[in-house]
Amino acid sequence: MNSIKIFSPATVANVSCGFDVLGFCLDSIGDEMIIHKTSEKGITITKIEGYDLPYEATKNVAGVSALAMYEALQPDCGFAIEIYKKIKPGSGIGSSSASAVGSIFGMNELLGKPLDKTALTKYALKGEAIASQSEHADNLAPAIFGGFTLVRSVNPVDVLQLPTPNDLFATLIHPQIEIKTSVSRAILPETVNLKSAITQWSNVGSLVHALHTNDYEVLSKSLNDVIIEPYRKQMIPHFATIKKAALESGALGCGISGSGPSIFALSKGKDTALGIEKAFQNMYSKTDIEFNTFVSKINTEGIKIL
Amino acid sequence: MNSIKIFSPATVANVSCGFDVLGFCLDSIGDEMIIHKTSEKGITITKIEGYDLPYEATKNVAGVSALAMYEALQPDCGFAIEIYKKIKPGSGIGSSSASAVGSIFGMNELLGKPLDKTALTKYALKGEAIASQSEHADNLAPAIFGGFTLVRSVNPVDVLQLPTPNDLFATLIHPQIEIKTSVSRAILPETVNLKSAITQWSNVGSLVHALHTNDYEVLSKSLNDVIIEPYRKQMIPHFATIKKAALESGALGCGISGSGPSIFALSKGKDTALGIEKAFQNMYSKTDIEFNTFVSKINTEGIKIL
Repeated sequence: MNSIKIFSPATVANVSCGFDVLGFCLDSIGDEMIIHKTSEKGITITKIEGYDLPYEATKNVAGVSALAMYEALQPDCGFAIEIYKKIKPGSGIGSSSASAVGSIFGMNELLGKPLDKTALTKYALKGEAIASQSEHADNLAPAIFGGFTLVRSVNPVDVLQLPTPNDLFATLIHPQIEIKTSVSRAILPETVNLKSAITQWSNVGSLVHALHTNDYEVLSKSLNDVIIEPYRKQMIPHFATIKKAALESGALGCGISGSGPSIFALSKGKDTALGIEKAFQNMYSKTDIEFNTFVSKINTEGIKIL
Repeated sequence: MNSIKIFSPATVANVSCGFDVLGFCLDSIGDEMIIHKTSEKGITITKIEGYDLPYEATKNVAGVSALAMYEALQPDCGFAIEIYKKIKPGSGIGSSSASAVGSIFGMNELLGKPLDKTALTKYALKGEAIASQSEHADNLAPAIFGGFTLVRSVNPVDVLQLPTPNDLFATLIHPQIEIKTSVSRAILPETVNLKSAITQWSNVGSLVHALHTNDYEVLSKSLNDVIIEPYRKQMIPHFATIKKAALESGALGCGISGSGPSIFALSKGKDTALGIEKAFQNMYSKTDIEFNTFVSKINTEGIKIL
């Protein structure tokens, strides 16, 4: 096998209460990439469609993660990468993670899978870092492992795979404004109230419990962010109205996807998820901001060969 | 049935990472209480053995919770309470909770169980509040529900029962100094670093995951408190040495039980737990502080009729 086509999924990081540690994987949106083994050594990016991104490997997220893995493994070949970018950069659903993961997942397959998922996460972090100026894996881990993940640590990489209730769907709306991850990190406070922190870790604990027990009621109560959302919601036009619409349409919870501006809602069953999408569309079409929406089952497989 | 004898267990609150929300139940130490139905109305405390505590119901933890429940239910009888206190007040293993829970559990049984565990927790909180000047249920919940519990909220009471790995044992050492819960709460900061808070909620999430998956390795990594322990350990003589001894003897983790001064270690298997106890004894017998130690299986049943 000298070429491989892969699907690198979009992801939702943080999941309300789990800032910097929780995430889940989507399946209805993701980048496509084709990776070719080449006789010439090194990493080259030969095609980019969809969005305007740098071809130079050292400046491209997919290139940087590929180079990190390439230098570590020192294979007897090179790789050419074609990127068909579907996830808009800066949308808040793991666009840079999908790029960072896609190249190295494909290379690993072409090399006969010398690396496990944890090692892949390690190299993907290098790509993620140039996009967000920090090594965080809350988008990378769900893209690589699938389903819900909890990142215990990035150095060393330590990821827990959490169970995914069967009937869980996500609805997303992406208001077409760009928020850079680095900026949305900068507005966060360095310290938080102990009382709020206790509420947050109670919610993280009960969210994990809810995923293990398929308890949608507890899941719903846990999807509550008292620490990050109060700061970041100010950057997203009509966030409060969208959240209200989601909850009134039966969402289990609704919050900022990653660092925004995308907003996610989780719900039990596809019908509810579609109803929430309609509510999002009704509400946002009254504004003058362009947007798009979609519904996705939680993707328990993660990144895959097409 | 006009009289009932009950065992009200000691408990460990916080469990390192889960300040104010997590707790587990012990079975080798607890108070005994005998509750009698009386024709005369009201709550009286007729006997207290073990420690010197007030007989006046409005000043006694067991009396205050009993009165709260009594006033709510307004039964056609009264109750006389005998307390055989085995858990030393101020030891950090839920002494006041055991008292608060014991009286109302017994009364509820004698009345034909009109209240569920959540309602019992609600009235027990009233007793706990006079001991610690705050309504917290991280000792009450494991005493009532058994096993590991996560308290989502006290108003309204919302408790999650977490699974307990079969082979999990606790070793405790109680240095005979008294730390009042109210004092040990007062030394805590009002704000904490966001970075530390993220580590803490990552640990809470992974501890819950570890309990669900019987994963002792993840359990061990999760038993880490970066927020509260740095403050409270200063109040406990030789804490660092005890913790080191526990970990070197194979403990999964070791931390302050509740607000201290008791220290708990968790381990897989009774032999390891007994080895840790020996290490505690060896170490602390070199000091001039009186102490006692014990080993306990995690009590999955909670408070019970004897």
